[in-house]
Amino acid sequence: MSANLKDTIVALATAPGVGAIAVVRISGDQALTIAAQLFRSIKGKDLRKQASHTILLGHIIEDEQVIDEVLLSLFKGPHSYTGENVVEISCHGSSYIQQRILSLAVKHGCRMAEPGEFTLRAFLNGKLDLSQAEAVADLIASDSAAAHQLAMNQMRGGFSSEIAKLREELLNFASLIELELDFAEEDVAFADRKAFEALVQRILFVLKRLIDSFAVGNVLKTGVPVAIIGEPNVGKSTLLNALLNEERALVSDIAGTTRDTVEDEISIGGIRFRFIDTAGIRVTTDVVEQMGIQKTFEKAGAAKVVLYLLSLEETANLAAVFTEIAQQKNRFPDKFVVVVLNKIDRLSEHFLAAFRDRFTTTFEGVSGLQFVGISARERSGVEALKTLLQSQVALGAIRSDETVVSNVRHFDALQQALDAMLRVDSGIKSNISSDLLAIDIKDALYYFGLITGQVTNDELLGNIFANFCIGK
Amino acid sequence: MSANLKDTIVALATAPGVGAIAVVRISGDQALTIAAQLFRSIKGKDLRKQASHTILLGHIIEDEQVIDEVLLSLFKGPHSYTGENVVEISCHGSSYIQQRILSLAVKHGCRMAEPGEFTLRAFLNGKLDLSQAEAVADLIASDSAAAHQLAMNQMRGGFSSEIAKLREELLNFASLIELELDFAEEDVAFADRKAFEALVQRILFVLKRLIDSFAVGNVLKTGVPVAIIGEPNVGKSTLLNALLNEERALVSDIAGTTRDTVEDEISIGGIRFRFIDTAGIRVTTDVVEQMGIQKTFEKAGAAKVVLYLLSLEETANLAAVFTEIAQQKNRFPDKFVVVVLNKIDRLSEHFLAAFRDRFTTTFEGVSGLQFVGISARERSGVEALKTLLQSQVALGAIRSDETVVSNVRHFDALQQALDAMLRVDSGIKSNISSDLLAIDIKDALYYFGLITGQVTNDELLGNIFANFCIGK
Repeated sequence: MSANLKDTIVALATAPGVGAIAVVRISGDQALTIAAQLFRSIKGKDLRKQASHTILLGHIIEDEQVIDEVLLSLFKGPHSYTGENVVEISCHGSSYIQQRILSLAVKHGCRMAEPGEFTLRAFLNGKLDLSQAEAVADLIASDSAAAHQLAMNQMRGGFSSEIAKLREELLNFASLIELELDFAEEDVAFADRKAFEALVQRILFVLKRLIDSFAVGNVLKTGVPVAIIGEPNVGKSTLLNALLNEERALVSDIAGTTRDTVEDEISIGGIRFRFIDTAGIRVTTDVVEQMGIQKTFEKAGAAKVVLYLLSLEETANLAAVFTEIAQQKNRFPDKFVVVVLNKIDRLSEHFLAAFRDRFTTTFEGVSGLQFVGISARERSGVEALKTLLQSQVALGAIRSDETVVSNVRHFDALQQALDAMLRVDSGIKSNISSDLLAIDIKDALYYFGLITGQVTNDELLGNIFANFCIGK
Repeated sequence: MSANLKDTIVALATAPGVGAIAVVRISGDQALTIAAQLFRSIKGKDLRKQASHTILLGHIIEDEQVIDEVLLSLFKGPHSYTGENVVEISCHGSSYIQQRILSLAVKHGCRMAEPGEFTLRAFLNGKLDLSQAEAVADLIASDSAAAHQLAMNQMRGGFSSEIAKLREELLNFASLIELELDFAEEDVAFADRKAFEALVQRILFVLKRLIDSFAVGNVLKTGVPVAIIGEPNVGKSTLLNALLNEERALVSDIAGTTRDTVEDEISIGGIRFRFIDTAGIRVTTDVVEQMGIQKTFEKAGAAKVVLYLLSLEETANLAAVFTEIAQQKNRFPDKFVVVVLNKIDRLSEHFLAAFRDRFTTTFEGVSGLQFVGISARERSGVEALKTLLQSQVALGAIRSDETVVSNVRHFDALQQALDAMLRVDSGIKSNISSDLLAIDIKDALYYFGLITGQVTNDELLGNIFANFCIGK
């Protein structure tokens, strides 16, 4: 962020390309003055004299030539997104007109905005804290109900206010302890140690809860990775297609056809699941296929859920099948493994019931292992499988008002804050001196401040806002 | 247009995809009532009680859940684009949020708008005439300065008002003639024949000028088609690339490589030129290549300008070369043919000067034939060629305020009106009876009315607005 934040900036705020309308946004001290040079109101009104939050109809003019008939929305600082004077020009959506208006604004003194610069200014002008600003980018990128709700909660400040409250209480104690240090010779205790210990315990509790919530938050934001494994030709591609409800992976009856891993996503109950289709697992001398199988296990290692897909004849050696199931579960002890018996339309009900009984008996007490019978081809059992997948994501947290952390940067800062607070805790217990305690408290305060942006530096801001789209 | 025009409609007004913001537009009687159900103002304001052209900050709410923080712009009919009550919701630009708001609006009683339905309503409510409404679509599609300016002139009503004025004068005379027919037995003449003849001459003059302007208007709107022909390996692809300034066509040293015609466009001085790259012209027994050559002549037939590309050694038989040039010009007598001598970097200045002299002498007095020497590889002479191309489009008309017709539908209607007016003219000259004259006048009035929309039918409106994008 080396750009001058005093400049008046301009950018296209709507998606690029042709639409019925497009919006060009100008922000900065000179926004109204510059807009007054481009724009001529139909009714001859001077836009600089209009009230905030009003709309004017008029023309964009360059050298007495009409570029477009537009609506111009006025927002006077601090009552705007950025906190500065803002003008939004709603023009006809041709790329040509968008370009003409942008370059006209630049000609009259605007600078093209850097990615995220409008939101950076909103942050710097105190309209949003840093975690809220980050939520704006998450909100724009959100493509599932869960990711959207997470970003919305964060943008509305639930997370920030929780952190800010803890930080304030801690800051309060820190000042009292500083005070003790100032009067060290007199050996007075301004800080109530009991209350302080209680606060530390409360902060530790909240920090642990927030850190734990990241497991869910991250999954909600980025989706649940699901690996599908199994021998060749058991119907992995067909299952993927049934789940995706469209033909995206190569389906063929030739064993070993699917060699590349194909990832795709579906949303089940508002949660994104990223499916990883993999090469079949079988003994092979084909080098390319061996590489594919190696990749399968790597991919499955990154998954949260493993679908082990089987296809059986009624004459199959069930003892061997159940040994193989046990081996697969052993390979992924920490993952949720679903044994999916495919092609059940070819099996008798009697066989299926017997298989199900044996599964229940054999794996009684084994956690993270489930069975479901489906016919991917006939799309039966697919909904049951979806329900099973959905059960793997604890949605309680996100549905209620409880704060969920979904941002890696926040997660890191929270862990650093936790480390510092654990040092404070053990310091209190071992009765160390206040000046040493103060160092760890300051550390914790620093990491709390990083989240909300009370502590920042140029590099941090640069990293965060560079990931924004232009115009936000 | 079978949809009910009383419905309140909703659509995404900005380009599809992800942007910083997106705009959802609602129009109709119920726009404010429906918006009041989705939207909750931050300051607790009732949007139905706000003045037109104001902006409210608030939240989109579904089942007490916040979907987004938005700005809502209010336009009360008739002071809106459609003439109806209009609400524009400026939301965060994620596809997910766009979809949620659209479906929420539908849930509360909106119908998804058909393509062009907002503009159709603007027309039906008298906010625009038909040719202005058509200009809206042209404006959004405009991707060059000339196409933009044409659409803007048309949208601002220059063309309509010219037509409407003539129609009104003609209508005036028509009523007087009708009056004469009503009093036929008394043989009175209400209409001043001399003045009527003068009007007919004036209308004929204007109609001819407008019809003539279509040649330019159409080219400005759709671009100038330019064919590049020549023997294989003279550098057609390289020339095209030099003109396009990037590598779009397949360039290779193997003669006959370019078999498919590749079209591409550049904008020179605000005018679009559509280049047609073609297979080489040479005697060949290769069937595929013969088909390519056949296609070359077909493509060149559709072009307005033909670039005949040559590449010569200094030892070439110039007599044969000039015979071939003459033959090519004979093949395209009505087109502007530019003989482009490529690879001049390999030729001496002396040879080049001699060639140029011979060209001037040989083709003195031949119109529509020009010479330019270039090196496509070294990009020299390319600018001179561009200037030559640009000179082929008369820009006078579009630069001044003179009306230019660019719409095929208007062109057709103008020709029909001209036919009718010519019949009126010859009717006057042969002194036919007023009742026969009245028929031809009515015909002319009908075709004038078709242009501005004073005469319409469902099929006509359906055809026009179906070509609009959704949301406009």
